[in-house]
Amino acid sequence: MPKLIYSNTKDSDMRYIARANITDPFFFLDNDSEQYVFLDLREHAYFQEKNNNPELKAILVNDLYEKAKQLDEKTSLRNKLALLIFDEYGLSQKCIEVPASFPLDLADYLRSKGFELKVKAPFFPERLIKSTEEIEQIKDSLAKTKPAFERIEQVLADAIIMQNQIFYKGRLVTSELLKQEVQEVLSKTGMANLDGIIISSAGQAAIPHHPGGGPILPNETIVADIFPASLQTGYHADMTRTYVKGEASEAITKMYFTVAKVQEKIINLIKPGITAGELYKIACDEFIKAGYDCDNRGFTHALGHGIGLDVHEAPILGAISQHMLEPGNVITIEPGLYYPELGGVRIEDVVVVTANGCKDLTDYRQLFIIK
Amino acid sequence: MPKLIYSNTKDSDMRYIARANITDPFFFLDNDSEQYVFLDLREHAYFQEKNNNPELKAILVNDLYEKAKQLDEKTSLRNKLALLIFDEYGLSQKCIEVPASFPLDLADYLRSKGFELKVKAPFFPERLIKSTEEIEQIKDSLAKTKPAFERIEQVLADAIIMQNQIFYKGRLVTSELLKQEVQEVLSKTGMANLDGIIISSAGQAAIPHHPGGGPILPNETIVADIFPASLQTGYHADMTRTYVKGEASEAITKMYFTVAKVQEKIINLIKPGITAGELYKIACDEFIKAGYDCDNRGFTHALGHGIGLDVHEAPILGAISQHMLEPGNVITIEPGLYYPELGGVRIEDVVVVTANGCKDLTDYRQLFIIK
Repeated sequence: MPKLIYSNTKDSDMRYIARANITDPFFFLDNDSEQYVFLDLREHAYFQEKNNNPELKAILVNDLYEKAKQLDEKTSLRNKLALLIFDEYGLSQKCIEVPASFPLDLADYLRSKGFELKVKAPFFPERLIKSTEEIEQIKDSLAKTKPAFERIEQVLADAIIMQNQIFYKGRLVTSELLKQEVQEVLSKTGMANLDGIIISSAGQAAIPHHPGGGPILPNETIVADIFPASLQTGYHADMTRTYVKGEASEAITKMYFTVAKVQEKIINLIKPGITAGELYKIACDEFIKAGYDCDNRGFTHALGHGIGLDVHEAPILGAISQHMLEPGNVITIEPGLYYPELGGVRIEDVVVVTANGCKDLTDYRQLFIIK
Repeated sequence: MPKLIYSNTKDSDMRYIARANITDPFFFLDNDSEQYVFLDLREHAYFQEKNNNPELKAILVNDLYEKAKQLDEKTSLRNKLALLIFDEYGLSQKCIEVPASFPLDLADYLRSKGFELKVKAPFFPERLIKSTEEIEQIKDSLAKTKPAFERIEQVLADAIIMQNQIFYKGRLVTSELLKQEVQEVLSKTGMANLDGIIISSAGQAAIPHHPGGGPILPNETIVADIFPASLQTGYHADMTRTYVKGEASEAITKMYFTVAKVQEKIINLIKPGITAGELYKIACDEFIKAGYDCDNRGFTHALGHGIGLDVHEAPILGAISQHMLEPGNVITIEPGLYYPELGGVRIEDVVVVTANGCKDLTDYRQLFIIK
């Protein structure tokens, strides 16, 4: 069945096909025999120069646009263009597979013209199985993110505690200061993060996606979760470490090592054939066995998620996931515990499922106490 | 009519409402009486802390999720959740306005349940009229982008030409080197750009959206187009300058000053009541009068575009645009000329339409020749 996308390359399916940054939306058509992208003069020549997929043809769309302008119908130029593209390249087929993100107004228009649209999700299931090249790109993104953690660790190590605050070179250490340090490191390694950075401590760290703001407190957990994409390849890293600057209470220490051990246990259990839901359940059971909670308190989020051109992509390692792991799945393993009175602990690595187990692509130390 | 969105805050409509970075998709509902976002434990408390819109209520969605899990129907949890949200918060209404980006599978499901979905575009027409705060945020993003141009100009000024190449501190000046310098500056000012940066010269610069790669050539046009967003506010800057390092030929010089004069002329003509299409036509006529081409050669793109939470948003200043400018529209004015044998010239400023004319929010020098 032919496949049609209309999107820009912020849409990871389109990026997966086009392997380039194209800011404005355009059409992709796979008519079951050939694959096309339809670009205008602003992009066409550059795309042709860069494109190294011989299966994918770039069509200069300006002539079709001119034709579309002549069509006497009260609808958008884009809708008319879709019709002309199907006239010319659709091989007279009337059933089309589209992604869930397909524009609804365009879908309604094509349906009114007799096309049958079927949502396919995931649209490119092959994205779940990363190629050797994709695995290398994710590993490369992780390698370019580790220096940000080295910097955080260095700042915390060089900082001093005074009157329940942390100072670095005379400046109060805040979430903002640490994020600024991280941004500077990432800009040098070619990574960027429009979704923000999480560096939070104490009560803020007890809210998993709290980005953090204000002073970083000593003797409390500090969660640093950084998930930028490579400006060059678009592939993401996603790493979390939890630190304590100063002294950790017994309760925090127990929480930290419980999370670390659950992560280790899960990573040792990963292999083809086990389901994401089973892994989640094992993590939950371990937490409960250690005296913590699961679901609405304690361990409140999924165990991990697929990662690639999207920071969160299939498979999600949640309670009800029946996804059976396969070699080439690249997933995060990020158990965590969150209690308002204790703070939060989360430790996250990225692994690739292999023929017999998995390989940790992050391969970065897990420092806890920074004196 | 109630309005429903399901998206994350990379979707600018959702960002407009939520005023926060939320990575995973969630529901927004305006039932004509109240506005809600439905968030889970990972985000809810943070959102409540940050939200300063008293009209917008954050609902913790975990209980609804639990209910959705009990619903005995073969569809996704998200679809069930949508139904439950409408049961509880929809005031029994069955007609819903959704954005064009509304997930098609969810639309199909809701329609199968008797809902009538209507695509509204633009979804928030009020986004076209920027508030004083939004104008300040765009101006701030531009202010934080100017240092990147200062850096480029400094590097080119300090560089020397040898054997038809440019060297800076002993290193060959390439697109990559200049982009690296720009990234470092932007990381310090809190701006980030996942869409890439355009710094191209000579033949590459003749392709408007060619990002540029390899050596920057002396005595040729160098187009630098930088359009990052503020990590804090999400509002974009968009600036383009064209330089020549060394000597410009007569043909390049004429092309440059034609573009500069067209930009100046257009900025002087902008006022409420004039249409975007009229402005485009005036720019075209000026280029043709000066001996250049319009449409498929020469001036090949639109004259500009709205800018805000999206780098390209309504109104587009294209040939067929009937959008009548209004005070509060914030638009780029970016005439350009492109000829493979001459290179490209583009100069881009952002202006806000005022009661009597417009105000240039960019307010940055237009340097051409750098010796």
